[in-house]
Formats: sequence, structure tokens, C-alpha cells
Amino acid sequence: MSQAGEQGTLYVVSAPSGAGKTSLVAAMLRNDEKLCVSVSHTTRPMREGEQDGVNYHFVSREAFEAMIGRGDFLEHADVFGNYYGTSHIWVRDTLAQGRDVILEIDWQGAEQVRRLMPECVSIFIVPPSSDVLRERLTGRGTDAPEVVERRLAEAAEECRHALEFDYLVVNDQFAVALADLLAVVRSQRLRMSVQQERHGELLAGLSQ
Amino acid sequence: MSQAGEQGTLYVVSAPSGAGKTSLVAAMLRNDEKLCVSVSHTTRPMREGEQDGVNYHFVSREAFEAMIGRGDFLEHADVFGNYYGTSHIWVRDTLAQGRDVILEIDWQGAEQVRRLMPECVSIFIVPPSSDVLRERLTGRGTDAPEVVERRLAEAAEECRHALEFDYLVVNDQFAVALADLLAVVRSQRLRMSVQQERHGELLAGLSQ
Repeated sequence: MSQAGEQGTLYVVSAPSGAGKTSLVAAMLRNDEKLCVSVSHTTRPMREGEQDGVNYHFVSREAFEAMIGRGDFLEHADVFGNYYGTSHIWVRDTLAQGRDVILEIDWQGAEQVRRLMPECVSIFIVPPSSDVLRERLTGRGTDAPEVVERRLAEAAEECRHALEFDYLVVNDQFAVALADLLAVVRSQRLRMSVQQERHGELLAGLSQ
Repeated sequence: MSQAGEQGTLYVVSAPSGAGKTSLVAAMLRNDEKLCVSVSHTTRPMREGEQDGVNYHFVSREAFEAMIGRGDFLEHADVFGNYYGTSHIWVRDTLAQGRDVILEIDWQGAEQVRRLMPECVSIFIVPPSSDVLRERLTGRGTDAPEVVERRLAEAAEECRHALEFDYLVVNDQFAVALADLLAVVRSQRLRMSVQQERHGELLAGLSQ
């Protein structure tokens, strides 16, 4: 499908939980077959209904640490005792095939990716108001207050890094936010640096 | 309509003649009421059906040269003995009102604008092939060969500067090219620098 030399674009998508990121990214994938999402490696146990290689690549702690040692990860993190990471090789190979790759990671992962692949395009998604966020994170009132407080504190911490991102999408109406995200992807494909690879012959012919 | 502090974006749209730029820009304006197009100043005589202040601001050579002297133009050119120019003041004021402004100018004008307003977003439009361009510029075969040759040479010269632009849109199917242009505009409004002005309070609230 892709022509030789055509490189995909790496998208980093971050958000506080409760912003609707996962549903939006899933909808992006359904709308654009050139997009794909990276499957992370993790050391956390597989849950019921999950599949190795689909939800995550499930690996042992030793295997994960060996990968860290070899510099195999584009970004990785230790979240409450479980490792999560994105394979650099997979991302590089997929981009080289001309596909666009989405990473759903937090601001710390985004920071690591920017350092290694500064040409990535980063998007931050927020809910339309603090009240909406609070409502979504408070849940049905069945969670312990300290769990809710931790969630809110994490969401605020994530949002304090919003300005480090290239684009901001406000998820007020789902369809509008989705169209926003797809417009970012569409416009990135129109950048001269990308189009020059794709339409080099056309431009050369027109200039004669 | 626009909130205090919200700045519009300046778009520079260039193309070889025959690429469909004028029809595409007209369609953009119909689709997006926040967009407007700059009305140029010119010293060329008004033609039948034209209106001062609508098609152009028609001014005398003396008035135009006085404006050049005062540095009133964002860009100007002498095309076969007639001056054409874009008022810097009008562009600045319109952007300050939060409106996006499109300038339809050639690569030389684009170069002048980039120097004075490096934050502008420039888009180059091309036809889908050299054959299509040649066909469109050759016309119905009623034009003198030297007129056709000059047109083709000018189009090639324009295209040799395509790489200086931020985006490239190929006008193969009109609707696709229009959607491309609208996606560029939509994505520009989602840039963090723009959204930060617009959603500063939201971001501050979410970070607490």
C-alpha cells in the first residue's frame, strides 16, 4: 500500500483518566485504516478475557528487565510494581512500513518518547470541565474515598503537563472530538515533508 | 464571537495558475465563517463588474507608492506594470479580532510574508499531473503560442518553490482537496499555542 520511502507518523496521545481517550482512539482506528495502535509489553498478570499479543505482550519481570538493559523500549514505566513499556523496534518497523502509530501513554512516557523521537506528534485530550472529570472519577460512590482522591490527584498531575503537547482536544461532544483528532492526522499527512516523499515525482514534473 | 486574547491564524495559499486555487479558497470561505480573505490593493484599472473594496482596493500609482514608503504592505509586487499589495494593518487588525485570514499570493509574496510574519501557515496547491496543468493552461487553443508558453513557464517557476511551503494539497478531486484544506485549518485551531489562549481557565481548573 505505501510507497517506498514513505514514513508513518508517530502520535502520542495522553489524557487524565476520565477524558475518554480510549474510546476516542478506538474510534480513530475504525475511521482510518492507516492508523494502528502499539501493543505494550507488561509484567502484570493477564486478566480474564485478555489475550497475549492483543491487549498486551505479557512477559516476566526478568524478560522485561533484560529488554530495558538492551534499550529495547521507546518508553517504559513502573506503575505500582508492574512494568509497562513500548517496543522501540516494533514502532520503528511499523512507521517504516508507512503506517501511522498511536501510543496511548501518560505524560512521563510522552516525555521519554519526545526525547528519542522528537518528530512525534503529541495530543492531549481533556474533559470539558473539572466538574465532569470529578463526576467521572468519583464513579458511583462505591469506591473508597482515598481511591477517589488518588485518581483525582493523578488526573490533576497529568493535566499539569498538558502544555508540553502539540495539540489540545476538548472532549465535550464525542463526534466533535473525534473529528478534531482525525483532522490532526489528516493535516499531518499534508505536511510538505511527508508529501514531498509521496509526490516527489509530481513536483519534479510540474517544475520543468 | 472571539474571546479576548484569541489571535487568528494567517494562511498563505499559493499555486500555479490552473491548480484550482481560487475555487478552492472560495469553497473554504463558504464552509468556514471564521475564515476571510484579504482584499488586495492594486493600481490596475477597474474592470467591468468589479467593485472597489470588494475585488480590490483600487488606488492610484502615487497612493500605492506612498503606502510602500510608509511600510504599509505586508507584501507587494509589480506585475507587468501594475502594483498589487496586501495591507499589513488590515491583516493585523483582522487577526487580532480572532479571525483567520487567507492571502492568495504567489511564491514571492509568500516569501515576503514569511519574513514579516513567520508564524503564518503556508499551503501550496498543485494539479494532479503535468498533463492536466498543460491542458488547463493551453486553453481552447485560441491563445497565441507565446502566451501559452509564458503561462507554462510561470507555472513551472511557481512550482519550483513548492518546498518552501508548510503543506501540499493535490487538487485531483475537488471535494478531497477542499476537505484537506479544511483539515489543515481545523488542526491549526487545535495547536496547543492556540488552545492555551482559548481554554486557559479549563486547563488551570483541571490542574488543581
